[in-house]
Amino acid sequence: MNEKDKVKTYQFKAGTFHCDITGHLFVEQLGSMLLDSADYFAKEGGFGIQDLNQNQHSWYISRLAIEMNDMPKAHDDFLIETWVENVIKAFSSRNYCVKPIGGEPFGYVRSIWATVNTTTKQPVDVSSAGNGVVERYALPDKPCPIRKISRVHIQGDIPYVSSIITNYSDLDINGHFNSIKYIQHMLDLWDKDWYIEKQFKRIDIVYTAEAYFGEKLNFHRQEIDENTYRIRITKQLSDNNGDEKEICRAEICFKERL
Amino acid sequence: MNEKDKVKTYQFKAGTFHCDITGHLFVEQLGSMLLDSADYFAKEGGFGIQDLNQNQHSWYISRLAIEMNDMPKAHDDFLIETWVENVIKAFSSRNYCVKPIGGEPFGYVRSIWATVNTTTKQPVDVSSAGNGVVERYALPDKPCPIRKISRVHIQGDIPYVSSIITNYSDLDINGHFNSIKYIQHMLDLWDKDWYIEKQFKRIDIVYTAEAYFGEKLNFHRQEIDENTYRIRITKQLSDNNGDEKEICRAEICFKERL
Repeated sequence: MNEKDKVKTYQFKAGTFHCDITGHLFVEQLGSMLLDSADYFAKEGGFGIQDLNQNQHSWYISRLAIEMNDMPKAHDDFLIETWVENVIKAFSSRNYCVKPIGGEPFGYVRSIWATVNTTTKQPVDVSSAGNGVVERYALPDKPCPIRKISRVHIQGDIPYVSSIITNYSDLDINGHFNSIKYIQHMLDLWDKDWYIEKQFKRIDIVYTAEAYFGEKLNFHRQEIDENTYRIRITKQLSDNNGDEKEICRAEICFKERL
Repeated sequence: MNEKDKVKTYQFKAGTFHCDITGHLFVEQLGSMLLDSADYFAKEGGFGIQDLNQNQHSWYISRLAIEMNDMPKAHDDFLIETWVENVIKAFSSRNYCVKPIGGEPFGYVRSIWATVNTTTKQPVDVSSAGNGVVERYALPDKPCPIRKISRVHIQGDIPYVSSIITNYSDLDINGHFNSIKYIQHMLDLWDKDWYIEKQFKRIDIVYTAEAYFGEKLNFHRQEIDENTYRIRITKQLSDNNGDEKEICRAEICFKERL
């Protein structure tokens, strides 16, 4: 396979009603478009979720980093270019470039996906789950000029901020709490005036467990500096001890809005 | 202007990560695409929100009805065809057909928009706000085979269900509570098992007042029959009497999922 067949590009529009109070695309809308691009790519290659599901396998997102110099504005047409960086055992890394039709990229994205047996919930080698196809797309030398995804180390307990109960609209097609909805709920920890002063710069997310319908999720947040925060989302366990289990942790960086 | 220039068609994709647990496009995602289609149409005609804003005017959605035989499924490409039905004083009606690339329509949509002076909040004739352009697009005879939008009469108080505090992600580009987010929050009044048994059929919404960031919204719901519900959303006023003001009311119909 030659290199140009290993990179696929999808076009999107930043519709006004998918944009925030500043007129820029919501980060979670971009996030859904990124995962949709991965899904189209995999479907075209014969290793989409639906293909893997036939053998009780699926793709689970493990880590994600989105770093944006700028976000598409209302009415912007833009492109998401995506490629597989590497495949190692049960993990594959997929990168993305978000760019206007002409001009400098808006930003770059890195993601790590695991192939999992949906019955046993155990990892399965990508080469086995994907019938040896995925690794043929690997492009380890194509540049993705943002740093690797952080593991987001959080020491001990950090301050509790708020909770939600997961709803129907939070669930994805597999009935899991949608990986991108975490981003929406995390960004909702700041008020509208914050977003008038600051713009989103980068998020690193580590997904550690699944959440399901009707669960109580607790949001904890630690300020690292005035533009950098770490967040841990836990779910309330149904034991009577008030125990919580971490489902995801993230570091979010903002910058002054220009 | 001839008839074909008065009808515009936009293509969309039902991305997997914009679909619900049943694999169908979320109604609120379709809703945002409908409003985006109206926005593209108006922008191309020179009477978009940004054009009207230059003279301190804007489009406010007044009523909306979405009636779907079926919803697009994950990976479906589909079309939204839209046209202006009529213009009367400060109100214009815009209709939509949602259809696959080939085949029978998924459903139809009616909407009524008011042109408003953004400073005085008073209605302004569409002919004045739109510089006489909008009415030239009117196609009163093009069929839209669903009934007119209901005014959704609700008698007296109906049972309280739950509340939300409006977040950053609920706001549109104008800083108002996004008209389509009401639909998401209303559909979240049912649990995931409901949607496995039932599918969305129709919603009629009447928008009666604006909501803003940080307000408490109360959801009240009345069962009309096993598939039909009326909902009133109120906002808690900041007086000390616990008074509420209606911001929106709706009737939602479901049908058995095939």
